[in-house]
Amino acid sequence: MREAYHVELEQLAVKLAAMSLQVADAMELATKALLETDLSLAEQVISGDSKVDDARADCEEAAYALLALQAPVATDLRTVLAAIHAAESLERMGDLALHVAKAARRRHPEAVLPDDVKPYFTEMGKVAVKLARQAETVIKTKDVEAARTLEADDDQVDDIHKHLFTVIMDKNWPHGVAAAVDVTLLGRFYERFADHAVSVARRMVFVVTGRMPGYGSAEDL
Amino acid sequence: MREAYHVELEQLAVKLAAMSLQVADAMELATKALLETDLSLAEQVISGDSKVDDARADCEEAAYALLALQAPVATDLRTVLAAIHAAESLERMGDLALHVAKAARRRHPEAVLPDDVKPYFTEMGKVAVKLARQAETVIKTKDVEAARTLEADDDQVDDIHKHLFTVIMDKNWPHGVAAAVDVTLLGRFYERFADHAVSVARRMVFVVTGRMPGYGSAEDL
Repeated sequence: MREAYHVELEQLAVKLAAMSLQVADAMELATKALLETDLSLAEQVISGDSKVDDARADCEEAAYALLALQAPVATDLRTVLAAIHAAESLERMGDLALHVAKAARRRHPEAVLPDDVKPYFTEMGKVAVKLARQAETVIKTKDVEAARTLEADDDQVDDIHKHLFTVIMDKNWPHGVAAAVDVTLLGRFYERFADHAVSVARRMVFVVTGRMPGYGSAEDL
Repeated sequence: MREAYHVELEQLAVKLAAMSLQVADAMELATKALLETDLSLAEQVISGDSKVDDARADCEEAAYALLALQAPVATDLRTVLAAIHAAESLERMGDLALHVAKAARRRHPEAVLPDDVKPYFTEMGKVAVKLARQAETVIKTKDVEAARTLEADDDQVDDIHKHLFTVIMDKNWPHGVAAAVDVTLLGRFYERFADHAVSVARRMVFVVTGRMPGYGSAEDL
C-alpha cells in the first residue's frame, strides 16, 4: 500500500512537472508572437491550450484515483491536495499565455505594443518563462532553496509591472488610450502568471516542509 | 460512518454558503465605496478580507478532516474535492472585491471613475453581487436549475465588460489614459468575480449530477 502510494505520487509529480514545461513553452511562444507580431505562433499557442486543459484533467484524475484507492492521511493527504491545487494554478498559467496570444492575434497585422514598451514585455516574458521552468525544477527536486529563488524573480515581474503603470500614466504617453489599455491587460496577465508559478512552488515546499514559506503554518494555505 | 460523513458534508456546505454571502457583501460594499468615493467603506472591505481568507482555511481544514477520517470514494470523494475548489474560487472573489476597494482608496478623495461610466459599474456590481448570492442558494439547495440562471447573469457581466472597451477605446473618450486604465482593471475584476461565481455553481451542479453543465463529462473539470 505505502509503496503503491509513493509510485503513484511520483507519477503525479512527473505529470505536474511536464505541465509546468508546457505552460512555460506556451508563454515563451505567446511572448514571441506578441513582440514579433507573429500570427502563426499566436495560433499555435491558442490551439495548444486544450492540451494544457487535458493535462490538468489528467492530473486531477490521477489525484482522485490516489485518494480513492490509497486513502492517504496526514501529510500524504495534504501532498495530494497540494498537487490538485498546483494543477489548477498551472492550467490558469496556460490560460494567461492564451490571453497573451489572443491579444497578439486580435491586433494582427498591427503590433499590440508600441516599440518603446516592448523591452518591458521582453523582460517580463523572460522572467515569467523562467519562473514556470523553476516551478518544474522544484516539483522534480523538491528543493526548498530553489523555491525561494522564485520569490525574488516574482518581485522582478511585480517591479516591471508597477513601473509600466508610471510609463502609461505619464502625461507625455504618446500612444493613446487603446495602447495603454492593451499594456494594462497584458501587464496583468504576466503578473498573474508569475504569481501562479510562485504559488505552485510554495505548495511543493509545503509538501516537503509542512509549512508554507513566508507564512506561519499550513492554516495559511 | 456514512451518517457522520453526511453530517460533516452538510457542515462544509454551510461554511461555503456563508463564505458566498461574505464575498457578496464585500463586493457590494466595495462597489459602493468605488461609486461613492467612500473611504471608510473601502477600508472596511480591505480590513475584512482576512476573514474571507480565514473562512477558506476553515473550509479546507473541514474538507481535509472529512477526507482523512471518512476516506470517501466515488461521488462522495468528488463532492469534497468540489468543495475545496469552491472555497478557492470564493477566496479569489474576496480578493477581487479587495482590489476594487483598494482602487477606491488609492484615488481617494478623487473618484476613480468618470461619471459617465459609473452606470456600467453600478450594473456590473449589482449582477456580480447577485451571482455570489445565487451561488449561496445553489450551495444550499443543490438546485441545478438555479445554477443555470447564473450562466445568463454572467453573460450580462461579460456584455457590459466588452461594451466598456468600446467606450474607453472610442476616439472621443474625454477622460484620458489614467481613467481608461482604471476602468480596464476594474472591469476585469468584476468579470473575474462573476466567472468565479459561475465556477462555484458549476461545481455544485457537478456534485449533484456528476456532469459539469455545458461540458461533456467530469473530465472537463
